[in-house]
Amino acid sequence: MMHMLTPAQWVQEELLAGRNLQPAQEQASAYAPANIALSKYWGKREKHFNLPITGSLSVSLADHGSQTKLQIIDAPEHAVYLNGEQQGADTAFVKKLDTWLALFLPTDVHLRIDTHNTVPTAAGLASSASGFGAMALACNELCGWQLDYTSLSTIARLGSGSASRSLWHGFVKWQAGAADNGHDSVAYVLPERWPQLRVGILTVSSASKAVSSREGMQRTVQTSPLFKQWPSQANSDLATIEEAIMAADFSLLGQTAEHNAMSMHATMMAAWPPLVYWQAESVAAMQQVWALREQGIEVYLTMDAGPNLKLLFEEHNTPLIKQVFPLLDVIQPFQSAHKNS
Amino acid sequence: MMHMLTPAQWVQEELLAGRNLQPAQEQASAYAPANIALSKYWGKREKHFNLPITGSLSVSLADHGSQTKLQIIDAPEHAVYLNGEQQGADTAFVKKLDTWLALFLPTDVHLRIDTHNTVPTAAGLASSASGFGAMALACNELCGWQLDYTSLSTIARLGSGSASRSLWHGFVKWQAGAADNGHDSVAYVLPERWPQLRVGILTVSSASKAVSSREGMQRTVQTSPLFKQWPSQANSDLATIEEAIMAADFSLLGQTAEHNAMSMHATMMAAWPPLVYWQAESVAAMQQVWALREQGIEVYLTMDAGPNLKLLFEEHNTPLIKQVFPLLDVIQPFQSAHKNS
Repeated sequence: MMHMLTPAQWVQEELLAGRNLQPAQEQASAYAPANIALSKYWGKREKHFNLPITGSLSVSLADHGSQTKLQIIDAPEHAVYLNGEQQGADTAFVKKLDTWLALFLPTDVHLRIDTHNTVPTAAGLASSASGFGAMALACNELCGWQLDYTSLSTIARLGSGSASRSLWHGFVKWQAGAADNGHDSVAYVLPERWPQLRVGILTVSSASKAVSSREGMQRTVQTSPLFKQWPSQANSDLATIEEAIMAADFSLLGQTAEHNAMSMHATMMAAWPPLVYWQAESVAAMQQVWALREQGIEVYLTMDAGPNLKLLFEEHNTPLIKQVFPLLDVIQPFQSAHKNS
Repeated sequence: MMHMLTPAQWVQEELLAGRNLQPAQEQASAYAPANIALSKYWGKREKHFNLPITGSLSVSLADHGSQTKLQIIDAPEHAVYLNGEQQGADTAFVKKLDTWLALFLPTDVHLRIDTHNTVPTAAGLASSASGFGAMALACNELCGWQLDYTSLSTIARLGSGSASRSLWHGFVKWQAGAADNGHDSVAYVLPERWPQLRVGILTVSSASKAVSSREGMQRTVQTSPLFKQWPSQANSDLATIEEAIMAADFSLLGQTAEHNAMSMHATMMAAWPPLVYWQAESVAAMQQVWALREQGIEVYLTMDAGPNLKLLFEEHNTPLIKQVFPLLDVIQPFQSAHKNS
């Protein structure tokens, strides 16, 4: 710990050692999908490197994600556009991007950054995961690093933890790692494909969240007595989800993912002050999901740090589920027009 | 454990040793208040004796409770009336009463049992707590046992755990005890009074619960990984609530009670299948309570294994809280027309 590097030192002196820090071309662009964790990332062991207490595993959301274009500009600072609108230099979003770019980009290089989120608004998906995923891919291109995606996942992670899982399509695992500088806290794609798997996005409330994921995670780790039990459950759920994917066992996948999500929300609820991301509509929708299961229709739910539900089901149940949730946005994770990853 | 007595043997041979098991008079009646646990009873260490994993502490609800009258009748079985209506012999309620009476009453004695619940319906209060509390008090009278209330609390407990706390007005503590036969798992009343304390009953949904408390408790203990952490939290909360009562520290009381209740619900939610007693309306009401707190009005919530909220506040905030919750049933725990306990 005495010779601990800062994140910027680690990126420049170790991860990118021998590589050019100057841009190699004028512009670059990349796409990265959003992702839904089946086994959640909840709790950091270190905050400067965004290192998680446990591993996590997600499925990417195909064409729901971020398309980002970078262009070198002759200007005193970066110019950031989100869905076509320029963002003020003092917004949290731009500050976060500035801090992240400063990890490796020479201070005299400035970029015009154009990000388009191809995700439904207010679904808790237009988040930092696909954004920093696409940024990492685009920077790799711009600077000609030719880093492998797993190494890039560590750069994406320094922007947002769940971004480390947003570089690939399909099932992605982010292993916790043990090193102080997180060089082993990397993500990688699993070879398994599951064409019949569906993820439904159910936007039940567009109420913006009063407490950020980052703050919620911290409050939970610090004040929830039940959180002491979380890491061992999360590790066990992660192993089970991986087994379920390898065996294409949908019931095991769905049950474990739902149990994992409910348990994560439980650890928040036992924080002080209580952290309940659910709105009335969330609970009404949950009860509908459970009613469907009682009728024998296999559908499971998962939720992130927000009020909306993500449903897991298989293709053949789509019509029945759409009857109950007509506004459900049904995603085919293994069918995407984007093939860049 | 080799010479373990059954509950009936323990009651007859130990608790009531030397006392008459035959009724000493023709009839008897008693009242017992309902109670709200500030530090919850959630999880049994033994089911035949209804022994809890941890202690708990409640406040009684004054005139919300059960008035029960017993009368010896010449009939082949007990006749049970609830709020004036005779209950069928095969109902769960009557079966539970039969089993409990058989713990000590000679099999040739039959009673007419008239119970009136002076509680709002569907508020999760017309439960077994005040019912078995009143039954224990009335049986003590009928048979002339002259048992002290703390001993009677063990008899009430054999009918329903939380009934052990329903024999007194005010703050009541039920200690877990350690003995196999639960002779030390007794309740007693605390000397402290708190005339300014208010309990508001907020009936947000009259949807009947799909899973009984008994079953929910069992599922949680057996399947919720987070439950492993519950006993140490419950014990710590219990000690804090007792301190708060002694110091008349309302903030400490309210915070600890709310945290305890949320944590109990969290352990349920992490059970499998997930156990969520909340309805949409419950969450809407919770958010209103938290919004009131953000405005500086000290009000805390607690919930039992059902969708309704119980609010804790002090007298001076009653008008403001009634503005937000016009239908709130405001109870003054330390002011009751019933003085029998």
